[in-house]
Amino acid sequence: MRVCALAGGVGGAKLSVGLQDALEPGALSVVVNTADDFDPWGLRVCPDLDTVMYTLAGVANPETGWGLVDESFASLEMLSGYGEDTWFKLGDRDLATHVLRTQRLRAGETLTGIMGELSRALGIPGGILPMCDEKVSTMLKTPAGLLEFQEYFVRRRQGDEVLGVDLKGIEDSRPTGAVLEAVSGADVIVFCPSNPVVSLGPILSVPGMREALAVTPAPKVAVSPIVGGKALKGPADRMLSSLGHGVTSAGVAALYEGLLDGMVVDRTDEGERENIERLGMRVLATDAVMGPGPDRERLAREVLRFGAGLKA
Amino acid sequence: MRVCALAGGVGGAKLSVGLQDALEPGALSVVVNTADDFDPWGLRVCPDLDTVMYTLAGVANPETGWGLVDESFASLEMLSGYGEDTWFKLGDRDLATHVLRTQRLRAGETLTGIMGELSRALGIPGGILPMCDEKVSTMLKTPAGLLEFQEYFVRRRQGDEVLGVDLKGIEDSRPTGAVLEAVSGADVIVFCPSNPVVSLGPILSVPGMREALAVTPAPKVAVSPIVGGKALKGPADRMLSSLGHGVTSAGVAALYEGLLDGMVVDRTDEGERENIERLGMRVLATDAVMGPGPDRERLAREVLRFGAGLKA
Repeated sequence: MRVCALAGGVGGAKLSVGLQDALEPGALSVVVNTADDFDPWGLRVCPDLDTVMYTLAGVANPETGWGLVDESFASLEMLSGYGEDTWFKLGDRDLATHVLRTQRLRAGETLTGIMGELSRALGIPGGILPMCDEKVSTMLKTPAGLLEFQEYFVRRRQGDEVLGVDLKGIEDSRPTGAVLEAVSGADVIVFCPSNPVVSLGPILSVPGMREALAVTPAPKVAVSPIVGGKALKGPADRMLSSLGHGVTSAGVAALYEGLLDGMVVDRTDEGERENIERLGMRVLATDAVMGPGPDRERLAREVLRFGAGLKA
Repeated sequence: MRVCALAGGVGGAKLSVGLQDALEPGALSVVVNTADDFDPWGLRVCPDLDTVMYTLAGVANPETGWGLVDESFASLEMLSGYGEDTWFKLGDRDLATHVLRTQRLRAGETLTGIMGELSRALGIPGGILPMCDEKVSTMLKTPAGLLEFQEYFVRRRQGDEVLGVDLKGIEDSRPTGAVLEAVSGADVIVFCPSNPVVSLGPILSVPGMREALAVTPAPKVAVSPIVGGKALKGPADRMLSSLGHGVTSAGVAALYEGLLDGMVVDRTDEGERENIERLGMRVLATDAVMGPGPDRERLAREVLRFGAGLKA
């Protein structure tokens, strides 16, 4: 079975590693949001791609879910000593990823090609695919003005109300050949429990991506990132609310209407089954909150079984 | 008293810190060789500038003379994990210097401006001045072919015979305004005990630099990097020999003929006095091999006293 997952950062990475563990080596491709990418100190940092890569390579920091395990921050301290504002916590080992990526981008390689090389070097058998090779930047409209995503997310700790989302550059982007192949070749397509607005939203906004998903016959199933009216992680709940969406699994399902065949929700949200089914989706209510280690593979297997059963 | 020193890496940095200790804060400007600069992983690394800067800031590694004290190498290990060849030992804290410099160069700042900012941030009162703002690259002709300086110096551990030196880009370089001011405003000019071929050689080859030194009335004095027919550090002795120069203090003096008023040699080389005086220079024979710590200031004071006495 070949699987294509769409993912943002930490939540997406958790289900992705469960899928990797559940599948034959090389059978998983993860299409990852790149609209959070930014360039501190002139280095291209791709938070979601790297979180997925480090997690699938087994070198992610298990406490935070992002960054590297056993990380040090000597370089950042030196930057601080030079008077730099170091709100973005670049670790020493993480820095190597950004330095190499930046060098290769400047040399004309594609982000897709670079992530392929880096993830293979870390021993990942499947594909970690940027949603596109063009630069797209999520800009958030807030009462404090337009904020770059990392400014909002890291520096201001998601304290601003999000009143709108602008994906700068999205109109000039297109799905890569690798993404189109992963979508068309998949037996099941999984929308990870990532933020539907700022993680999966940009992926689905790449011109041609929704069409590619629509034409492939593979069943498409999402795992809800909202459980009991709250986000498992991050600001998705407040963001859905301030943008006028329902802060429920059904609210998330509504954002994916027309794309999905099935929705996996937590047992807590069993009561939303009818609202979701009304959107033309089947529902699996299970333990959708992943615990550590093997629980991620357990959920992945349930999602795949549910997805495969939605065929025809 | 205002002093302008010309310096390469470790040897130049040692005398420079002695001069800094001997002088009023801000009275020292060090003009530094940049022809060893190169761009590993797309980052501009300036070995001599950084050795001088770290030494004057009191944060240099006292064991090696270059690099930072208490340095770690987590980033380099990660680069190695990505399959990179890591013969150039970039430390984590050192990396911060290169990342910032590269970012600012790309933003259009001059190397002179950047080094000013970085060295001020590290608390250095005087000026650390690149010999020029243009990129110059020392290329060495060897039996193994043309080698970039760091390739020869670090990767191949100075094992190749140097048959010729080519300073790529030197014809398009010129002394910066800061260098010309430091030279014309100095009361004494000191040639540090650096390699006369590949450290001070490039500085003196910047078109206009010899002329600027010639017209300033300040006495000019060099400290010999050769003691008893051997280089204090590095491959200067073998290089002088293979290029057909005398491997003596007098041999070094001959390379500076017409530029210098005086030469400081070690007592060991007292016997070379006549040969050097024949080149039109006065000679001070003293303990020219710097020990650790305060001995650097001791030599600096002797050099300055000798230099100031050569006036008129």
